[in-house]
Amino acid sequence: MQKNIEIVLSPLLLPLVDLKGKTVVVIDILRATSTICAALDNGALSVTPVVSVEEALQYDKSDYLVAGERNGQKAEGFDFGNSPAEYAPSLVKGKKIVLTTTNGTKCIHASLDASEILVGSFYNLARLSEYLSDRDNGVVLFCSGWKNRVNLEDTLFAGYLAQSLSETHIWDSDEVELALSLVNKAQFDPVEYLRNASHAKRFARLGNHTDLPLCMQFDKHPVLVKYKGGKLVSSY
Amino acid sequence: MQKNIEIVLSPLLLPLVDLKGKTVVVIDILRATSTICAALDNGALSVTPVVSVEEALQYDKSDYLVAGERNGQKAEGFDFGNSPAEYAPSLVKGKKIVLTTTNGTKCIHASLDASEILVGSFYNLARLSEYLSDRDNGVVLFCSGWKNRVNLEDTLFAGYLAQSLSETHIWDSDEVELALSLVNKAQFDPVEYLRNASHAKRFARLGNHTDLPLCMQFDKHPVLVKYKGGKLVSSY
Repeated sequence: MQKNIEIVLSPLLLPLVDLKGKTVVVIDILRATSTICAALDNGALSVTPVVSVEEALQYDKSDYLVAGERNGQKAEGFDFGNSPAEYAPSLVKGKKIVLTTTNGTKCIHASLDASEILVGSFYNLARLSEYLSDRDNGVVLFCSGWKNRVNLEDTLFAGYLAQSLSETHIWDSDEVELALSLVNKAQFDPVEYLRNASHAKRFARLGNHTDLPLCMQFDKHPVLVKYKGGKLVSSY
Repeated sequence: MQKNIEIVLSPLLLPLVDLKGKTVVVIDILRATSTICAALDNGALSVTPVVSVEEALQYDKSDYLVAGERNGQKAEGFDFGNSPAEYAPSLVKGKKIVLTTTNGTKCIHASLDASEILVGSFYNLARLSEYLSDRDNGVVLFCSGWKNRVNLEDTLFAGYLAQSLSETHIWDSDEVELALSLVNKAQFDPVEYLRNASHAKRFARLGNHTDLPLCMQFDKHPVLVKYKGGKLVSSY
């Protein structure tokens, strides 16, 4: 059976794709999906994605770590921001986390028509690729972007993942070709290439010079992350 | 003054961009904007873009050539389809044309907030670039795509045009970087590269093997095309 890959470059383009029966991989490299992989690989029990800051703050802090950002910075009243660096094993092991972010968590909720929802980042690229190769259904790589704009880092990651599936999957998609052209341009030094990305420049303006290279570490957290019953959980 | 370039990759992404005070270049390489450049350079007096087949058919055929396509093929009752090859000087010189196409003509109507609307294709790349270099305002390169999907050929052309403006314009746009990565990948043989595009495959399925290379001829019709009073006219 031929398994198809499609890429959604922005949430505004999601209506063009039929998610039914498909596996969706939500991608928000800087930083929601990187953070989710790091937290779960470092021992967190679950990450509950919620859309609004208000909703996150309604969770009981004796039971949950409350985490997230708005416009790239930690939201007021939160325990954690949205950098994977904050989610050390000593802090998150055995804990439940509730997370809201500018882009990524919204895309998880927008994907509920799919048959399963996974979370993708450079941290779990090989693990994801292995899992998707073994599955029979079509795959939609859903780039969160930044406030609905297409971004480089999510598209680049989608390109790496599509490339890694080229022996088991097919595509008839200009979006996939576009993502592969990024891989072609970036391959010798993806971190350096992404310094041209608007998000990397936004980080630099905020004084954050560490999260871009941190989020680009291939296979650092080889965890399979699935959305089940309102929560993201690891599935080794 | 720093003049900015932005790229809109799909009509669904147009709401993210403020067109006021900007020059918009509408791009539909396969084939509306290529056809418009060819027709005007071959002596047509004007091309009136209309959204629907029904609207096109209401024009008086003693005064207008009625042209256009739906889903890549000539619409019923029309004098011309949407291939530049049909618009020979002997047929269009001194004529007024009304044109409706699947994607491109809609984008012209969606751009009315801009201070001016131009039409871009490989045929008039150098002429457009020269004109935009001399203007003071920001530029939005608006890719028509295919039924709201992002496509390779429009994005590739936007990349070539952005590259040609790199000495006079600036950008802080992941979409521009994405388009430039296509130029980087395609530069030695853009026609061959675009054979991977979904539109080229669609042409091949329809038995059309000529329009792709035909529409990729750089500077074949060096005409500046502006939208004025509901019509596209040439402005040498």
